[in-house]
Amino acid sequence: MLKIAIVGYGNIGKAVMEAIEAAKDMELCGIVMRAQSMHKVTASVPVADDISKLNPKPDAAILCTPTRAIPEVAEKCLLQGISTVDSYDIHTDIWELRTRLDAAAKKGGSTAIVSAGFDPGGDSVVRALLEVLAPGGKTFTNFGPGMSMGHTVAVKAIEGVKNALSMTIPLGTGVHRRLVYVELKEGYAFDDIAAKIKADPYFASDETHVYLERDVDALIDVGHGVNLVRKGVSGQTHNQLFEFNMKINNPALTAQAMAACARAGAKQMPGAYTMIELPMIDLLDGSREELVRRLV
Amino acid sequence: MLKIAIVGYGNIGKAVMEAIEAAKDMELCGIVMRAQSMHKVTASVPVADDISKLNPKPDAAILCTPTRAIPEVAEKCLLQGISTVDSYDIHTDIWELRTRLDAAAKKGGSTAIVSAGFDPGGDSVVRALLEVLAPGGKTFTNFGPGMSMGHTVAVKAIEGVKNALSMTIPLGTGVHRRLVYVELKEGYAFDDIAAKIKADPYFASDETHVYLERDVDALIDVGHGVNLVRKGVSGQTHNQLFEFNMKINNPALTAQAMAACARAGAKQMPGAYTMIELPMIDLLDGSREELVRRLV
Repeated sequence: MLKIAIVGYGNIGKAVMEAIEAAKDMELCGIVMRAQSMHKVTASVPVADDISKLNPKPDAAILCTPTRAIPEVAEKCLLQGISTVDSYDIHTDIWELRTRLDAAAKKGGSTAIVSAGFDPGGDSVVRALLEVLAPGGKTFTNFGPGMSMGHTVAVKAIEGVKNALSMTIPLGTGVHRRLVYVELKEGYAFDDIAAKIKADPYFASDETHVYLERDVDALIDVGHGVNLVRKGVSGQTHNQLFEFNMKINNPALTAQAMAACARAGAKQMPGAYTMIELPMIDLLDGSREELVRRLV
Repeated sequence: MLKIAIVGYGNIGKAVMEAIEAAKDMELCGIVMRAQSMHKVTASVPVADDISKLNPKPDAAILCTPTRAIPEVAEKCLLQGISTVDSYDIHTDIWELRTRLDAAAKKGGSTAIVSAGFDPGGDSVVRALLEVLAPGGKTFTNFGPGMSMGHTVAVKAIEGVKNALSMTIPLGTGVHRRLVYVELKEGYAFDDIAAKIKADPYFASDETHVYLERDVDALIDVGHGVNLVRKGVSGQTHNQLFEFNMKINNPALTAQAMAACARAGAKQMPGAYTMIELPMIDLLDGSREELVRRLV
């Protein structure tokens, strides 16, 4: 049994707990969270404000903190010999994170699975596969309609924002509209906040609309989707057509992917890996023979 | 540069040649085929009737012979230290082939990529990924409409069949109809041949219709498709919806997948692997950094 700790206990942390409960080869050995929130955990599982306080020591930590906290939290675990899985979703910085965590993992004798989840994650594997099957051509990733967790967290981190929701609307061919719904704290001007949101790296390159709302929570639906399309060339043959669609509960999917990556991490040599660097079979529970017979 | 030999020069062999020409990291070092067919090769590339006659020795052989010849041909290459890629497509016997070739590859210090192509192959990776993302539930693989190469070859192998084409028609939820068009050699009874086709392991479990035709070649279109559907459970969350569609030229896709697998095989330890046992990144040409930055 793989002993797993969950670090951070929000939407994703709770969903990871469900994924671990459903897995036959993993057990939850503790939750790491801020001391002042510990009363929110009702499950009978050890809770600590620092992963080093968990006993027995976890084999792996699934990191469910905000994405910007990941580099530091992951590095700390890895150096202690605790493998990590994160769902770091700032696409432009994934390679840098992987490089940093690769060094820490090799030093600590642990593994880091970087950017597991929906996208980056499952979508990344599909994008890689489609290039394998048709190296020429272009893939378009069309997200939504649905709530983007990464974008929502980014808006909530802006000073003056009381509550927020960022919806992603696919306009086709990889172009998206962002609909951002916010409640503000008293004393903040809507126009200033809207400008800050639009200037954030998460939003700067997309058409972004910001709306003031009275009750953002009433708008929340964590369903999300993707339509991934490639028209490409295999050898000298053009017009090879591919399409991948998901309509999913996003936290549940992300958590499930992360739990599976904890399993795969335990099978790799020390170092950092993204999902396209892992054999799919390592993410699954079962004997090699049973999995090859059933899935190949 | 990876030196590749093509063994067998039919539809797939010719498409593999195109895929190798399009790849920057591979070069074709020879074609292996029966002596009496050698005049059909017009390209300026060494041709031999036995792979051991090629000089320099290939790093890998892409096997484009009929599927039932694969075990013997592959084993012979592997024991000589030449890695192999095949598109063996008898799903029920893949594990047995993998086991046999694993032993030969370890003995010869080579690698065997088993059952690369459309399905098994690309579809296998998608099936594995969907179970990673939603372990509960059922995946349905709906093929076609399109010509099945494996089924067509199986019909052609039946004594008395002069020419044949097997079309796969998706009926949904993994159920298929097989439409088989045949021309017969003189002296053979249609009813006997039809019965033999229906009893063949390729057809025995499907609704199969056999039609006598005057000109089978006029019906041929090597386009094919798949609609792979999963409705599953991530953690405790039901109704996670997934769909993967391809509409492709089948020989071109199969050949491209095989060429990519030759690249991946060169990066593995001696032994046999199916596509779900390979990291997707190993199938792609390019630096790890460039691929992670672009695809993750």
